[in-house]
Amino acid sequence: MDKVTVNEVGPRDGLQNIQNILSVDERLKLIRSLEQAGIELIEIGSFVNDKTVPAMSNTDVLINKLGNIDNYSVLIPNKKGLDKAKENGVKEICTVLCVTDSMNQKNINQTVQETLNDLKEIFKEGLKNSIRTKCYVSVAYYCPYEGKVDSTYVNDVIGQLIDYKVDELVIADTIGAANPKEVTSLLSSLKSQYKDTSFSCHFHDTRALGLANVYASLVAGINKFDSCIGGLGGCPFAPNSSGNLATEDLVSMLEMMNIQTGVNLDKLIHSRELASEYTSLSLKGRMI
Amino acid sequence: MDKVTVNEVGPRDGLQNIQNILSVDERLKLIRSLEQAGIELIEIGSFVNDKTVPAMSNTDVLINKLGNIDNYSVLIPNKKGLDKAKENGVKEICTVLCVTDSMNQKNINQTVQETLNDLKEIFKEGLKNSIRTKCYVSVAYYCPYEGKVDSTYVNDVIGQLIDYKVDELVIADTIGAANPKEVTSLLSSLKSQYKDTSFSCHFHDTRALGLANVYASLVAGINKFDSCIGGLGGCPFAPNSSGNLATEDLVSMLEMMNIQTGVNLDKLIHSRELASEYTSLSLKGRMI
Repeated sequence: MDKVTVNEVGPRDGLQNIQNILSVDERLKLIRSLEQAGIELIEIGSFVNDKTVPAMSNTDVLINKLGNIDNYSVLIPNKKGLDKAKENGVKEICTVLCVTDSMNQKNINQTVQETLNDLKEIFKEGLKNSIRTKCYVSVAYYCPYEGKVDSTYVNDVIGQLIDYKVDELVIADTIGAANPKEVTSLLSSLKSQYKDTSFSCHFHDTRALGLANVYASLVAGINKFDSCIGGLGGCPFAPNSSGNLATEDLVSMLEMMNIQTGVNLDKLIHSRELASEYTSLSLKGRMI
Repeated sequence: MDKVTVNEVGPRDGLQNIQNILSVDERLKLIRSLEQAGIELIEIGSFVNDKTVPAMSNTDVLINKLGNIDNYSVLIPNKKGLDKAKENGVKEICTVLCVTDSMNQKNINQTVQETLNDLKEIFKEGLKNSIRTKCYVSVAYYCPYEGKVDSTYVNDVIGQLIDYKVDELVIADTIGAANPKEVTSLLSSLKSQYKDTSFSCHFHDTRALGLANVYASLVAGINKFDSCIGGLGGCPFAPNSSGNLATEDLVSMLEMMNIQTGVNLDKLIHSRELASEYTSLSLKGRMI
């Protein structure tokens, strides 16, 4: 593998659950700084309930200030979010399916089947409106409420999402509990079964296995990863899920492996300093 | 892979370079505690110059107190060390070869060829005396003085050690600079080329890639690893090499992967507390 795409999710996943809520201008500056560091794709925010996730309000204002929306994605939880995405000219949306009922109920108060039904419509609508659709396959390995998730079941759920014509699946270890053996195993199986589907990975570094799991994914042929500048954030509804994989760790390891990312590490550290300043957190990856 | 052997090197590699020199009784208690945690093999000390490495003096007294020496190894730098090992009934010795001349000179003031010549005699003498011989292939990936080490060259040096009838080769990333791609690549090549040779791995966690590199080694078929309780230690002559892979991290990851080690994690944490107390250091792995 010569090249890997880094999808920075700090401005959404990293910021959604912190105490210091950033202003639109601060979010904008952070995004610009990440772009200047060479980050190719950025999840800039979400269209969710302002009351539930106040840090993500004004994502429409942010989009307006960003102008060109080509390399950005926005997370939407439902059809209402899709309407907002359409109104704001968003070209790529991220949807979320927690594959266990317990977790999906906590996250969006729906069963897996109810969300699958909604997603089918959302992907159809996306296709009609030339909006690229992604779907987070959340708690793909372990659920904080139900424990180890059966990989055959995950495989079947993913098969359904593919039938519904999603453009990309983001296989997420939402609570940072997966081990590299499981990662290679699930991803190799998915890659060989669904040859025409785009897969990417989203790891948390909760148990310090983020980088080992990235390597396990590379072995399985994955070439696109989510990460958060400074390891910022986690999911507000999953207990003990703090600690996203840090972008600077991901880029450092890939650089050591001579895999191109297009990212300049020095400039990335500047983005981390900016994120630390805005969030009042001492952000730091494990490697650098 | 169902089972992995953990070779605890804390009592030697971990303690050799710290400020607080442990008494023989403290070393003994630490070793006993590691055994009680289920650690199978322990490198208990070395026969080196007392003035250069005072923390390792009285290893003969320690051996005497330990009694049964079956599951222990002792590091020796030269033939004089071998004589001491024989006198003390040691059944397994570890030798060291730094594969670059610069590093080998710093370590034992010899060229690689000079050490190879000595090792040939040491392995022969070991065989004659029923002493199992191991050899650390130090700076196998990167040298702090010469940079990236050519893998074909490393392969050739290892071929020579195998010709000299060493029983086990410990491939060491002495400065914690190797990346998982290089690790799988070198080890797969060694395993396929030298099918009858025992290989194990020694990683440092300097750049937070210890666990990723363990996984990369498992992929290549390695089933034995060095580690240090609490991540204690490093090599005194290699700049920036601090941070051995922590035993509790190694065991935790393997346990998550359903790979048996025979080690009880709770008891291992007790060993870490003991090591912290004796060394006056706050020891902690990355995972737990």
